[in-house]
Amino acid sequence: MIDVDRAKEIILNEISPLKKKERLNFFSCLNRISAQDVKAKENIPPFNNSAMDGFAVRANDLIGASRKSPKILEVIEDLPAGYVAKKSIKAGQAIRIMTGAPMPKGADAVVMVEETRSRNDTVEIYKEIKVGENVRYAGEDVKKGKVVIKKGSLLKSGHIGMLASLGASKVKVFKRPKVAILATGDELVNVDERLGPGKIRNSNAYSLYSQVVKTGAIPILLGIARDKKADLKTKIKKGLSADMLLISGGISVGKYDYVKDVLKGLGLEMKFWRVAMRPGKPLAFGIIKRTPVFGLPGNPVSSMVSFEVFVKPAIFKMLGRKTDGAKEVKAAIKEEIIKKKGLRYFLRAKTAWQNEAYVTKTTGPQGSGQLKSMAIANSLIILPEKEERMEKGRMVTVRFLD
Amino acid sequence: MIDVDRAKEIILNEISPLKKKERLNFFSCLNRISAQDVKAKENIPPFNNSAMDGFAVRANDLIGASRKSPKILEVIEDLPAGYVAKKSIKAGQAIRIMTGAPMPKGADAVVMVEETRSRNDTVEIYKEIKVGENVRYAGEDVKKGKVVIKKGSLLKSGHIGMLASLGASKVKVFKRPKVAILATGDELVNVDERLGPGKIRNSNAYSLYSQVVKTGAIPILLGIARDKKADLKTKIKKGLSADMLLISGGISVGKYDYVKDVLKGLGLEMKFWRVAMRPGKPLAFGIIKRTPVFGLPGNPVSSMVSFEVFVKPAIFKMLGRKTDGAKEVKAAIKEEIIKKKGLRYFLRAKTAWQNEAYVTKTTGPQGSGQLKSMAIANSLIILPEKEERMEKGRMVTVRFLD
Repeated sequence: MIDVDRAKEIILNEISPLKKKERLNFFSCLNRISAQDVKAKENIPPFNNSAMDGFAVRANDLIGASRKSPKILEVIEDLPAGYVAKKSIKAGQAIRIMTGAPMPKGADAVVMVEETRSRNDTVEIYKEIKVGENVRYAGEDVKKGKVVIKKGSLLKSGHIGMLASLGASKVKVFKRPKVAILATGDELVNVDERLGPGKIRNSNAYSLYSQVVKTGAIPILLGIARDKKADLKTKIKKGLSADMLLISGGISVGKYDYVKDVLKGLGLEMKFWRVAMRPGKPLAFGIIKRTPVFGLPGNPVSSMVSFEVFVKPAIFKMLGRKTDGAKEVKAAIKEEIIKKKGLRYFLRAKTAWQNEAYVTKTTGPQGSGQLKSMAIANSLIILPEKEERMEKGRMVTVRFLD
Repeated sequence: MIDVDRAKEIILNEISPLKKKERLNFFSCLNRISAQDVKAKENIPPFNNSAMDGFAVRANDLIGASRKSPKILEVIEDLPAGYVAKKSIKAGQAIRIMTGAPMPKGADAVVMVEETRSRNDTVEIYKEIKVGENVRYAGEDVKKGKVVIKKGSLLKSGHIGMLASLGASKVKVFKRPKVAILATGDELVNVDERLGPGKIRNSNAYSLYSQVVKTGAIPILLGIARDKKADLKTKIKKGLSADMLLISGGISVGKYDYVKDVLKGLGLEMKFWRVAMRPGKPLAFGIIKRTPVFGLPGNPVSSMVSFEVFVKPAIFKMLGRKTDGAKEVKAAIKEEIIKKKGLRYFLRAKTAWQNEAYVTKTTGPQGSGQLKSMAIANSLIILPEKEERMEKGRMVTVRFLD
């Protein structure tokens, strides 16, 4: 039995980011990882332009302007956004300009319309202005030639907008890993089947499916393998063509657990198969011909927690993400918790921000079968191996779930 | 000009949750909102079963058992998961049982395999046991007839697993709102077009598209409407068949902004059109024949911030979500910030958890054109209207972005 940190280290050591790339329409790249440095082929904005609706002027002409003694300028043109001024501004002149329109030649600032009054072909201006005021300069946001999105970046809404601005209509992103999911056990029936005596429904495959979807990887459901070597072998082989294989149930000390045997027959290099944690102890990890294989516990909650603690970071690494996906904070526990020394505990909890700090409370009975407590939790309380009793009010580490 | 809170209140007052429902395969319901109370048609687990690999016994038979004087029981059957014991246990007997297998008749506890030693047809047991130990009782997780998922719940991975356990293969969820997005302006060209003089690329439609995707609603891109009444009218009309219409640009004091006129011609009931905030001041909101219409600022950052502050809560309400999507905490600012009194500021920032508290720092120049600072931000610093100077170290409200 190894500890949680060592188990995670072993797993991450065996996993490399996928190198396969694909070129997609830029707006299909949301939530994907850039597989290229994106360079600006143009300045953003592409030209000096007005930040306001108002009047393009020469700042020099307005020295001394005020409510009491406004300056009067001749308005020589109207300039909407999207067009270029035909005339250039000379002393005593102005051009009526819309937000985003290119600065006319000769103008060096823009007066907001609110500080002016138009009269026929002239405008009264009530305020001095500094050179450059209300002007957005070419390249102010992004300079041509600069890398604006680094390889490995997670592409968010702002990036998609930026790709549009830059005319980057196609972008190379990393392919998403395929994660195969196999449920095992003679006790399992499909969701829409009748429950015979001694049978339960296959639920783990679907919570794992959902957890995989949430990471951004592609889940592949392989169905249920019966506790027969031939069936297990066929379905596991199928799963090995994916980038990662999750096997739910079947890896424990039990006499009827053939999975380990079958995996060994297929060339499994077993890295570990028990972790000092609760829930989730019977967790196996190994490699078959470069494909990482997780043997996840059959208990519904253990399965979900093991995914969160081990599989998600592995998928994040495959995706090329820079984080392991764990969002952790400190919170005060609202109840006393007694635990077994030597195991790291992961308790389903509700964590909330209250009075400028986090507080956390377990979601009820923590039996590893109790999916209800997992469904209503928004977080896991993580309790260290060395502790036996955590008194009410103690600060503990909390990991947020999606 | 109205303040941010009042603007949000006006918007949310005009919006009701969509009532349209659809019945989907349960595992397509991830991230959707349940439109029904889901009742358990069965117990989970459906029968009393073993929580361990070990031996099903009568606790009475083991009184006094210890390492020194083990009790010896006759093993009368092997019971894998998925099957029902053929025999029932009498005094002095045990059944070898696997995790998840139904408790045999006569047995009232399970001894872990680790506390036993098998010898031919008998087993030595080294420990006393309590009635019910290592037994999971029928209905322990979910009682038949109980509501396990309430109408209005956001369906997460744990819920999907629970729906599978319950055999709920189809679930009614609320339909996702369709959000139409229209860009406006003669200055805009499409992403893959050449930039002529005075032109910029349509980027707001795509950051809004991405922001809509993130909320779980369905974005519909209507393209670019030119600054001509006829074109605007045709495209806006198209947008009114959606559940919500976002119009990017065109609603300001400018002479060339026809959008407002066209909207009024179509029967717009304008609720407000300026908000005391920075960025995002020129924000309009109204209703045309029951369809809520947002006039969003043309500046890329103002557009994204307005979406976050006003459109996202509106979509969340339409989706039937119980929260408005704002995840806010308090953080210490790492720099002094000077602001204009009377406006609420939303500054792009990076917020991190450090030494058991949040700290936050702006992502650089906060001009409303600067999409780069938005792309790298993970949060917005929210500064109240009444403040003018926020000194370094001051606790401020921070809202996390997706």
